[in-house]
Amino acid sequence: MSIVVVGSVAFDGIETPFGKADKVIGGAATYFSVDASFFSPVKVVAVVGDDFGDEEMSVFRERHIDTSGIRRVAGGKTFFWKGEYGYDLNVAITKDTQLNVFADFDPVLPDSYVDPKVLFLANIDPDLQFKVLERAGRPGLVALDTMNYWISSKKPSLERLMREVDLMIINEAEVRQFSGEANLVKGARAMMKLGVDTLVVKRGEYGVLMFHADNVFAAPAYPLENVFDPTGAGDSFAGGLLGYLASRPHLTEDDMRRAIVFGSVVASFNVEAFSLDRLRAIGVDDLHQRYRELRAITHFEDYEIVA
Amino acid sequence: MSIVVVGSVAFDGIETPFGKADKVIGGAATYFSVDASFFSPVKVVAVVGDDFGDEEMSVFRERHIDTSGIRRVAGGKTFFWKGEYGYDLNVAITKDTQLNVFADFDPVLPDSYVDPKVLFLANIDPDLQFKVLERAGRPGLVALDTMNYWISSKKPSLERLMREVDLMIINEAEVRQFSGEANLVKGARAMMKLGVDTLVVKRGEYGVLMFHADNVFAAPAYPLENVFDPTGAGDSFAGGLLGYLASRPHLTEDDMRRAIVFGSVVASFNVEAFSLDRLRAIGVDDLHQRYRELRAITHFEDYEIVA
Repeated sequence: MSIVVVGSVAFDGIETPFGKADKVIGGAATYFSVDASFFSPVKVVAVVGDDFGDEEMSVFRERHIDTSGIRRVAGGKTFFWKGEYGYDLNVAITKDTQLNVFADFDPVLPDSYVDPKVLFLANIDPDLQFKVLERAGRPGLVALDTMNYWISSKKPSLERLMREVDLMIINEAEVRQFSGEANLVKGARAMMKLGVDTLVVKRGEYGVLMFHADNVFAAPAYPLENVFDPTGAGDSFAGGLLGYLASRPHLTEDDMRRAIVFGSVVASFNVEAFSLDRLRAIGVDDLHQRYRELRAITHFEDYEIVA
Repeated sequence: MSIVVVGSVAFDGIETPFGKADKVIGGAATYFSVDASFFSPVKVVAVVGDDFGDEEMSVFRERHIDTSGIRRVAGGKTFFWKGEYGYDLNVAITKDTQLNVFADFDPVLPDSYVDPKVLFLANIDPDLQFKVLERAGRPGLVALDTMNYWISSKKPSLERLMREVDLMIINEAEVRQFSGEANLVKGARAMMKLGVDTLVVKRGEYGVLMFHADNVFAAPAYPLENVFDPTGAGDSFAGGLLGYLASRPHLTEDDMRRAIVFGSVVASFNVEAFSLDRLRAIGVDDLHQRYRELRAITHFEDYEIVA
């Protein structure tokens, strides 16, 4: 039932209209693994510098996440990203990127990580993602994330990966970029023809569209009154989604849909505070409660016609 | 069970990436009334020139819409709007606006229109909307549409109206403009404090959020592969929404939600062709079928936890 995630562990500097944080814990693999750990055991592959110390590692420890795949580079500095948001929280402006030890990241999976139930290839160079895939044995399900930079610079590498993975998570602008289609549904269908069974399209505050075989599932986001910091929302979403899937004996369409909703739920908590602060303060009951709220918010009955 | 709508009947010139129409039937009241007529009897108040002849009037006649409130100005020309869309079909670029007879529109309700079950004040000058309201007797439900232009030029008039109406339909940019709040949920709540019981927020291809007392309902749009011409989508949506509501004996939360979904359904048909072409070609069974599809697309079960 375990999940392996390969991606970044980082420090972030963040400024939003609501506050400022100079150096807080971030990184795709961090957000993902903390949020997935509410549902399934998680093992992380990442690299940090020795500025990411014992206190920082507690973010994994307190959620019983296996960190034997995190390499600490002596004398190295951890990946640092600095970003700013205006009132349109959909747009992050990158102010600084210091790759540091992440520049030479060569993911190595400990033997205990091989043959996971779910493998999540968080957003890194698709050639590295492919290497990880080759080393991971026979995962039950492989999920892929990427970004606009790799679509423009390494599309053939991405296409090679897409033939091998089961599920791909992508945002709507990236679907349009990848497919060259203005219409999102057409673009998604075109991408699936490259070998992706399930395409999960993130639409930020508007929610998610999942294309799965011939089915479409549309889930609105939880309507939040206080969005504090959107950093990590996409990785949080992936964590809830894949964490829930890894906890299920089989993957039915119903399971996939519930997983999308749990992904939306954890992402909605994530954006309510800086870093992992909100997720570190809640329990699984809070997730269940918001799941039910989201169900109440979206539910409608079959129609009735009055003659 | 009847609905009265007051608004524009027009000719449109439209160019989209998929085609061009020099002069086709348009106007908020036209889209609204044709679409509402699938559910309830409709009566229109509008003004046209004598270029809007017997052939054009068939758009109302074929759906048994009461046109005794449409005044034809001898020697006058009908309101004409020309617009263009790029691949981002959310953005219309106005190329030409000829108000013509619409410039002196002074809506007069025939006696047979008084005390309707539903009164829809389509987007016109809020002072005219108020006059109509005063002349309409005691409608069971009053619904209001507006646009950015009136929010910036006649906000006090709109606020006066909002104290009187039951339901307001508005798009998300207009909520932000009106309320000055970046967060949509906060903005909607602030607007409701001015006296609107139900606020229906349109988000284009992303769907709709309805705020109704303390409830929120989120409905994704029907995911369309072929959006041909978005003109009239908002008025179509209002037509399906209020048409369904007018057909119901009482207005429960379930009815309101179904109405939102029927609004989305008719709007999704509307954008599949120019003008009213698509809606003139389908029947109520098509609406029911797409309602059920939209339900299948959005439905998810309560969660299950596997120990």
